[in-house]
Amino acid sequence: MKKNNKKVNAAILIIGNEILSGRTQDKNIAFISNWLNTNCGISVREVRIIPDVEKVIIDNVKNLSKTFNYVFTTGGIGPTHDDITAKSIAKAFGLKYEFHKEAYRILEKYYGVKKFNDGRKKMSKMPRSAKLIYNPSSAAPGFMTRNVLSLPGVPSILNSMIENCKRYLIKGLKVHSKTLNLFTVESNISKKLEVIQKKYIKFVEIGSYPFFRLGKIGVSIVLRSTSKVKIEQVYRELLKLVNEKKIKILKIK
Amino acid sequence: MKKNNKKVNAAILIIGNEILSGRTQDKNIAFISNWLNTNCGISVREVRIIPDVEKVIIDNVKNLSKTFNYVFTTGGIGPTHDDITAKSIAKAFGLKYEFHKEAYRILEKYYGVKKFNDGRKKMSKMPRSAKLIYNPSSAAPGFMTRNVLSLPGVPSILNSMIENCKRYLIKGLKVHSKTLNLFTVESNISKKLEVIQKKYIKFVEIGSYPFFRLGKIGVSIVLRSTSKVKIEQVYRELLKLVNEKKIKILKIK
Repeated sequence: MKKNNKKVNAAILIIGNEILSGRTQDKNIAFISNWLNTNCGISVREVRIIPDVEKVIIDNVKNLSKTFNYVFTTGGIGPTHDDITAKSIAKAFGLKYEFHKEAYRILEKYYGVKKFNDGRKKMSKMPRSAKLIYNPSSAAPGFMTRNVLSLPGVPSILNSMIENCKRYLIKGLKVHSKTLNLFTVESNISKKLEVIQKKYIKFVEIGSYPFFRLGKIGVSIVLRSTSKVKIEQVYRELLKLVNEKKIKILKIK
Repeated sequence: MKKNNKKVNAAILIIGNEILSGRTQDKNIAFISNWLNTNCGISVREVRIIPDVEKVIIDNVKNLSKTFNYVFTTGGIGPTHDDITAKSIAKAFGLKYEFHKEAYRILEKYYGVKKFNDGRKKMSKMPRSAKLIYNPSSAAPGFMTRNVLSLPGVPSILNSMIENCKRYLIKGLKVHSKTLNLFTVESNISKKLEVIQKKYIKFVEIGSYPFFRLGKIGVSIVLRSTSKVKIEQVYRELLKLVNEKKIKILKIK
């Protein structure tokens, strides 16, 4: 994996009516985003969930692939009529949609010549010159077209393939984080927190998120930065604020 | 709630670095989408998750509010520095960002004059002429600006407020669904399924989703339509296919 001393970003494009309708709870967004940050120093900066409609897929692939360093798509690469991701990406980039020789060989070997029917063959059709993302659990490969990496929607299969994306990615600066869970309410600390955020605006992003636990109201303060040193500086300022206000700390991680 | 004999659609805009980073698993998308379809006959056609960045919020609010009948935003309406949803929506529509008199009174009464500090006052600042979405659990109201409804990010609070959105929505045609869970693989039925989908393309959307259960591979076939009659027609065609192929049915719902 090549390295880069800059920030590298990505978008995730979830393709599927099932997630949109609320019938299926998405699990891929958090998984991909965590994996990219932890293993590749890549920050996800936008996620979109869209239906299985060719024009919508094409528009979003064009738009996101221009704006972000990488785009990860999930869903729509199986054998059925509603699996139109590969064809739509080919159209988005003006590439031929055709059988990928290596993918065809992999699937023919996996199913055996007799059981290699049209639906299964379809899973080896991809945009011309796509690079394969190998699939250790169910053979059908994902693929990379330009800066767009296409993975299946089933979480367990996606999870098994994600390591095989690494070879195609340029590593960026990892974003570190530190979280303080406090037993207080946001409005008790919002003024001072804003002063600290303004002071460190170029280095550390401070997020404030209310929560309910054990019947009490609390706030998670999350510090995020590519610099561990700067995180510690902000952390020390926060500890001062917490002591001044006599706030109970629930957890630091 | 007014009724409409047409399809009504919506987009969801999740505003928050926490969901993007993968640290927090989103729970609002499936909840809002299910609620809208079941109670209001409104279909969610796009979801976006974006960071707490003013320009990004403005661009997305402008874009989505033009494209869809309604936009639901979640997150960024609390008292801290990173809560910039109301201000950004005001800018998106060229409206003044100012104290909403009724929201101010609600919050002043809830906290009491002495404890009504600047952070808490901030929660009553909204785009001019916003309509309030009452909050039975923690007082701070959401608000509707043009066709954009803004709710908080904390799922339990959002859930308690959603019924109060109803008065502002025009009801559309409900999308019904029927699901067949089959013990087979997608490629075994993909060819016939495509034929059926083509025949009913104007009336019923047929989705095919592989799953793993009890160590076996299965497929969920989901039929979605505003017409229950058409769903039953497709269902009967599917049963024929299932019988021909001698496929075991796991569940129908």
